[in-house]
Amino acid sequence: MRASRPAVHPVEAPPPPPTVAAQAQEQGQGQGQGQGQGQGEGVAHPRGVRMKDPPGAPGTPAGLGLRLAQAFFAAAALAVMASTNDFPSVSAFSYLVAAAILQCLWSLSLAFIDIYALLVKRSLRNARAVCIFTIGDGITGTLTLGAACASAGITVLIGNDLNICAENHCASFETATAMAFISWFALAPSCILNFWSMASR
Amino acid sequence: MRASRPAVHPVEAPPPPPTVAAQAQEQGQGQGQGQGQGQGEGVAHPRGVRMKDPPGAPGTPAGLGLRLAQAFFAAAALAVMASTNDFPSVSAFSYLVAAAILQCLWSLSLAFIDIYALLVKRSLRNARAVCIFTIGDGITGTLTLGAACASAGITVLIGNDLNICAENHCASFETATAMAFISWFALAPSCILNFWSMASR
Repeated sequence: MRASRPAVHPVEAPPPPPTVAAQAQEQGQGQGQGQGQGQGEGVAHPRGVRMKDPPGAPGTPAGLGLRLAQAFFAAAALAVMASTNDFPSVSAFSYLVAAAILQCLWSLSLAFIDIYALLVKRSLRNARAVCIFTIGDGITGTLTLGAACASAGITVLIGNDLNICAENHCASFETATAMAFISWFALAPSCILNFWSMASR
Repeated sequence: MRASRPAVHPVEAPPPPPTVAAQAQEQGQGQGQGQGQGQGEGVAHPRGVRMKDPPGAPGTPAGLGLRLAQAFFAAAALAVMASTNDFPSVSAFSYLVAAAILQCLWSLSLAFIDIYALLVKRSLRNARAVCIFTIGDGITGTLTLGAACASAGITVLIGNDLNICAENHCASFETATAMAFISWFALAPSCILNFWSMASR
């Protein structure tokens, strides 16, 4: 974070701790040293437990790549499924289309936010933003996984259990399902990283 | 935690903090100061952000209740699905049975661990244990959700899209699917709490 502007941190100014100098000497410059200590702790991470913007977190190039991958694969699932003319006859396939649209919109929105954060070199480790990202990731991830699993169940039913691939677009269904799964796999790291940074602050 | 025995915490004994006298005198050991601060922060929880054994965490009565609910509903899904004689003809239903067995075993194992922790009044906030619980919860939760969604997709296909409930056990399939979903809903808080306590240490 070679930020020329201040990174947006939710860390409120730490209260001046009972500083050494203050206690030892005359309660003199407790304010100044407290500031310095708090800042140093927030930046230095002496034990290395807390990560600062790990790769894949929002506002990092890897995070942007994950978002673009999610959006791309969700769009691919949507396109492949919508290219078959009989998907509306199966509820699960319609649900996959809906979930893919939602996933694509969500990931694209966050990709734009990431691009903005990268352009203006701002950190996105804002408490409220991370909370919203985590909840949104959780919801869209659950919906995408559910849609992918439902489609997979029906695809396997058609292809393996009933063997009626001849009169169905099995290849398209399988491709769309696989794309939805890949989109979910790209979403999982984002969700886990966001939740981690929300919990570890 | 009115523990008569020492709670098993992964917190190593904090080194003697940078005492007032020591810092005021020498200011030499900048290294030691960083160490002491980090440790003190890990133990004292000054800002009240970190929870200690929140309700639902492993080793608490609520956590035990969640585990028993997961195991009960997974067993119910398993029993209802296995009571139909034609579930092996559909891959997704066989998968639901397998996932329900896994879920039931996992939740029962952790319920026994919770009972043990409650009986001997020990805390389960061990770093490695929480990590294992979180990963196991994540895996079983994903499998259970996937199985429930796949079964739901096929149940909806049979019941609503094709309208062939007459020659199928739609009620049983729907009940088993609902039980699997409820089991997943009971699993989600455990997983989130475990992950939270893993990340926030």
